Amino acid sequence: MVNGIVLPIKKVFSLVDTKILIEIKDDNRKLQGRLVAVDEYLNIHMDETTELVDGQRGRNLGTVVIRGNNILSISPSS
Amino acid sequence: MVNGIVLPIKKVFSLVDTKILIEIKDDNRKLQGRLVAVDEYLNIHMDETTELVDGQRGRNLGTVVIRGNNILSISPSS
Amino acid sequence: MVNGIVLPIKKVFSLVDTKILIEIKDDNRKLQGRLVAVDEYLNIHMDETTELVDGQRGRNLGTVVIRGNNILSISPSS
Amino acid sequence: MVNGIVLPIKKVFSLVDTKILIEIKDDNRKLQGRLVAVDEYLNIHMDETTELVDGQRGRNLGTVVIRGNNILSISPSS
Amino acid sequence: MVNGIVLPIKKVFSLVDTKILIEIKDDNRKLQGRLVAVDEYLNIHMDETTELVDGQRGRNLGTVVIRGNNILSISPSS
Amino acid sequence: MVNGIVLPIKKVFSLVDTKILIEIKDDNRKLQGRLVAVDEYLNIHMDETTELVDGQRGRNLGTVVIRGNNILSISPSS
Repeated sequence: MVNGIVLPIKKVFSLVDTKILIEIKDDNRKLQGRLVAVDEYLNIHMDETTELVDGQRGRNLGTVVIRGNNILSISPSS
Repeated sequence: MVNGIVLPIKKVFSLVDTKILIEIKDDNRKLQGRLVAVDEYLNIHMDETTELVDGQRGRNLGTVVIRGNNILSISPSS
Repeated sequence: MVNGIVLPIKKVFSLVDTKILIEIKDDNRKLQGRLVAVDEYLNIHMDETTELVDGQRGRNLGTVVIRGNNILSISPSS
Repeated sequence: MVNGIVLPIKKVFSLVDTKILIEIKDDNRKLQGRLVAVDEYLNIHMDETTELVDGQRGRNLGTVVIRGNNILSISPSS
Repeated sequence: MVNGIVLPIKKVFSLVDTKILIEIKDDNRKLQGRLVAVDEYLNIHMDETTELVDGQRGRNLGTVVIRGNNILSISPSS
Repeated sequence: MVNGIVLPIKKVFSLVDTKILIEIKDDNRKLQGRLVAVDEYLNIHMDETTELVDGQRGRNLGTVVIRGNNILSISPSS
């Protein structure tokens, strides 16, 4: 059904080992960190993770695994 | 079960490379951008993405991957 | 597991090409329009879509694809 | 994994053609009606459906298909 | 992927025919009752069910089937 | 699709028998305890579980099974 199309998940795979920004669903926090691993459900393993609350750097969270269904968006972190 | 019927997802596939408007669930933001890729879960890879808050153009988000389950609707952007 | 039973989704398939009413989860809007296509996840492709807010006709949305998990209910529109 | 156990869904199948009460997630409404069909996702096709708001009989909804993931509970209606 | 590990669901299977306590997602109610059946999605069939609101015994609900995705946690009821 | 990549879930498997911290979706509670078992859906079986509310130690919950979709994140507990 999707052959010949580059899947959205391929974009995320290309971000492994780089810094990403994650928006959490229904939450005013964002999480920024290095993408260690991702799977087909968009479950994310990050390290060097920090919270961003209203654009302000918050707590250091270190290593976290985030469940994909609660992630709104993933983008490269500039 | 669905043979002979054109699937809803086919409509979205037809929008690849065009401008789309995404409504996020439980969120007063919409996202507008160019649809780069979509998969069977309606995960979306967009670029040239901008937020629309209450119909007003908001921040430029550039490239984002949005998880399908948090998307309420996808429509062609006029 | 479900043989011999007419599935709920068959009811929705029977509504293709007719006017339907969709209740969105956690949202005071309903969407009314013509059902173009539906799949096993209850993803919906509608056209001639209009919003109903508190029973009042709202904006015209035209063509939309709605993700099934965010749909509360689908019914024939009288 | 579940052989030898009567599945929860079997309980719901046993309610086909009887009156049931559905609690919707995050919603103070309940829906009461006759269970016409149900599938493995607990998608529900009901008819003769009426809303119950704070225990008071509300609008008649007639025939509705409700998506399983937004259903909190299903019980026999006494 | 999970061989050699005792799955979380096995813990729940071990609770069949005993009293359990269920926390509902985004709801200040808990449900207490006897676990009749459970499946791999953590759909639950309980009987002798009573609501607990703020630790106070509430209504008797009798027999209910609860959809797994709306369950936050399941624990043995002491 | 994901071969050659260490999956996020492998990180969680590595935490079995150690103390973890779980963030619940849309909830100001965190749960801290020993990870007994986890499956591919990130369903979690913990024991010695305690609530953390606003960083304060709350009730002891003992043994709980938490459904994966309602978990926001899992991290090693320092």
